[in-house]
Amino acid sequence: MLPLSELENRIGYKFKNESLLKRAMTHRSFSSENNERLEFLGDSVLNCVIGNALFLKDKHFDEGSLSRVRSNLVKQSALAEIAERIGISEFLRVGEGELHTGGNRRPSTIADAVEAIFGAVFTDSGFESAQTVIIRLYEPMLSKLTPDTLGKDPKTRLQEVLQGHHYGLPVYEVLEVRGLPHDQEFLVSVSVPKLDINLQGVGRSRRQAEQEAAQKALDSEAVKKLKG
Amino acid sequence: MLPLSELENRIGYKFKNESLLKRAMTHRSFSSENNERLEFLGDSVLNCVIGNALFLKDKHFDEGSLSRVRSNLVKQSALAEIAERIGISEFLRVGEGELHTGGNRRPSTIADAVEAIFGAVFTDSGFESAQTVIIRLYEPMLSKLTPDTLGKDPKTRLQEVLQGHHYGLPVYEVLEVRGLPHDQEFLVSVSVPKLDINLQGVGRSRRQAEQEAAQKALDSEAVKKLKG
Repeated sequence: MLPLSELENRIGYKFKNESLLKRAMTHRSFSSENNERLEFLGDSVLNCVIGNALFLKDKHFDEGSLSRVRSNLVKQSALAEIAERIGISEFLRVGEGELHTGGNRRPSTIADAVEAIFGAVFTDSGFESAQTVIIRLYEPMLSKLTPDTLGKDPKTRLQEVLQGHHYGLPVYEVLEVRGLPHDQEFLVSVSVPKLDINLQGVGRSRRQAEQEAAQKALDSEAVKKLKG
Repeated sequence: MLPLSELENRIGYKFKNESLLKRAMTHRSFSSENNERLEFLGDSVLNCVIGNALFLKDKHFDEGSLSRVRSNLVKQSALAEIAERIGISEFLRVGEGELHTGGNRRPSTIADAVEAIFGAVFTDSGFESAQTVIIRLYEPMLSKLTPDTLGKDPKTRLQEVLQGHHYGLPVYEVLEVRGLPHDQEFLVSVSVPKLDINLQGVGRSRRQAEQEAAQKALDSEAVKKLKG
């Protein structure tokens, strides 16, 4: 187990109250005084910081894109990637049983621990400090973002490809709505007559079904050719 | 339509850049330059501020309670209550069609507008200012919170009532699991032999089904008598 000062170096933040960091590095299998509450807090700080970073980054991100891109950035796999980069397992206190089964390297555990660090920094010295730590750790991911890969949903991308090649707008049509009002399923078709495309999507909302259909159209040979 | 300075009085915050508030008060039916992005941002600021307020308020709130209590505070009905208290409809710009159908008073619209205000304050002058505005508007709800009414889930409350009267622990049993792995339904029973209680709950997870069963037990005559 490495000293916590080394972890402070890696995240680029020195705690006033180091017991907060110790707490953040304590899994529930180790003690009832664990990092779960800090993780709760850190999760909301993270959502706010990344939400704001995306908000400022691109004015063309609409609400849906902001939400989707953020989900991709705050999900477990992204957090686990950061956790591995800073080698969090070497600082994590887990119970004996967990240790034997590699619990200190489990993606969910190390992702939670990263969120707990964010919560600990926030508690130690406020939002701005937490923001600085989060943005620094997320820098590689935030700089890689492109509107094409993350910012735009399938419907938007399909529309842009088609318009770019003067094929006009795709046409969506609801073919069927199944189920009870609170638990519906929508079957939707998308068609691009000039490309002889007619595909279907299913979803829990009309919008979701349309997005699925648009994604299928994007994956079709005809559209792939257009994208080159 | 009242001037925005009156809205500033009501929320207790004066904008440096008043166009942000104007934007926050613009529904998508009125203009493409609307409040949807600010609402996205405000939602995450709100979650963070209320999460932190609860985190600091009671050390005994575990992660699950924090999460549950926060959901109750940030849900549409709570936001709509705040929106009505500050009379937000009088400042909201909605399209003609919406206006005729009372769209400027619709709970979802006014709740979103409150979140947009939080996002606007955050953008105007940072987290601390947004926190001050949010805490002030939430004060009546935050001060009413009690562990009994909001902080504890039905299973915890049932256990406490029974133990307080020496009836021991309730016994939960999974009676049936239906459906496919990704879409299961659990049927669970809870029993308290000494009180002749045997009730069932259904849910999408074992935990959810147990909570439903516990709630039914709490609502039963036998337990109500204990609670006095």
